Amino acid sequence: MKDSQEYLAKKAFFDKVLTIYGRNAVMEALEDDSITIHKLHLSKSNQPNEQLQRMTSLAESRCIEIRYHDKASLSRISKNAKQDQGVALDIVLEHFGDEENFLQTHQSYRVIALDGVTNPQNLGMIIRSCAAGNIDAILLPTKGAAQISPLVIKASVGTLFKMPIIKTSNLAKTLQNFQTNGAKVYTLSSYAKENYKSMQYTDRTIFVLGNESEGVSEAVENLSDESIIIPMQRGVESLNVAVTASLLAFL
Amino acid sequence: MKDSQEYLAKKAFFDKVLTIYGRNAVMEALEDDSITIHKLHLSKSNQPNEQLQRMTSLAESRCIEIRYHDKASLSRISKNAKQDQGVALDIVLEHFGDEENFLQTHQSYRVIALDGVTNPQNLGMIIRSCAAGNIDAILLPTKGAAQISPLVIKASVGTLFKMPIIKTSNLAKTLQNFQTNGAKVYTLSSYAKENYKSMQYTDRTIFVLGNESEGVSEAVENLSDESIIIPMQRGVESLNVAVTASLLAFL
Repeated sequence: MKDSQEYLAKKAFFDKVLTIYGRNAVMEALEDDSITIHKLHLSKSNQPNEQLQRMTSLAESRCIEIRYHDKASLSRISKNAKQDQGVALDIVLEHFGDEENFLQTHQSYRVIALDGVTNPQNLGMIIRSCAAGNIDAILLPTKGAAQISPLVIKASVGTLFKMPIIKTSNLAKTLQNFQTNGAKVYTLSSYAKENYKSMQYTDRTIFVLGNESEGVSEAVENLSDESIIIPMQRGVESLNVAVTASLLAFL
Repeated sequence: MKDSQEYLAKKAFFDKVLTIYGRNAVMEALEDDSITIHKLHLSKSNQPNEQLQRMTSLAESRCIEIRYHDKASLSRISKNAKQDQGVALDIVLEHFGDEENFLQTHQSYRVIALDGVTNPQNLGMIIRSCAAGNIDAILLPTKGAAQISPLVIKASVGTLFKMPIIKTSNLAKTLQNFQTNGAKVYTLSSYAKENYKSMQYTDRTIFVLGNESEGVSEAVENLSDESIIIPMQRGVESLNVAVTASLLAFL
């Protein structure tokens, strides 16, 4: 019993850990006091230089554990041997959570679920707009979609560290879980009758946005409670997915 | 007198001509009947292949003039020797216009003016959202800003060919010209009191959006009639410029 509790606590912790890599990205994170950092990983093969020295002294002054690895081990940590430049950093994303915890702590909410958004630039912009707008969490599938990476962090202009993100290995199942909790799932369609602006949304609302070219997957589409439309001029058929997310975040 | 009229007619025509290059970009434009094409330029050094053959037969069936040049001349036409792949195409942007003509033909309007937006990806997204939304024209400076390029056309997902764009060599002067016509110039500021959603906009409205990092230039800021704010959560300081344009286009 104690073992499984320990396991779950550990899992909950590591669900919030993101490993970033590359000297500039790591440096920026170390310099930002608002980011919680777990560990700094350095390759023993690194040639000493000014930037590396500044990294270690920043880590020391922030009481961050520093670990030294051989090159191959560091690559296993960064998962990107080509671009890690011998440096990786475990960041704790305090705002990352799981769905059960979110549902227990929120009576009403607006959530954006991403069903297969693959472009990191778009994901970063979506996070930025959701953080600035009126969205309580982003549902992010762990498969078939862009994952949190240094590129996404950059495109989010640091807002990734402020935005609650809930990862899910099965978006359809998670949406059903939210529906059981009383949420309504809204999808966008150019055939829908209800204007996204005039719709009366429920207290527990989930907007699902689909892939950049394919749209929402069938399994998710089948769960939709209501379809809404963003009317467009000049025969334009669609908007960039990050723009769509922004219009919904600033409703 | 006749000469100057001819000159002005020629200038008005060439203001609307955009030269694109690269085999795929040219091919896509040739296949799109909604795009007006002036001339197809090919390098004499091109090795015959299926795609080039399809280009020339498409051009012939659309009665588009084909010109053959030596490699150096073609590069002068494409202005991009590295990426033209021996192919360039003069497109006529029917929706491009000049400010005088726009003012004469519009009693009320909403215009977005871009003051130094340098990222082609952002410019393309802005064009797409303005085309889909309620914006009558985009004011685009010819200096210190991203220009229409194949990258912009791609990011606009073809909406560039539908969106009225007015080029200006002096944005401040053009804004003053619009103000003389009765327009009000609105700029965004995080210190403004008026929420962008609750503001009562005039019939002739211009929103000015600034550079991605520097914001609006001083000369333009001084012309602002009113400041508006997009309120943001979680201490987020700014949105992507294309997102801001989209929120204004879908007001």
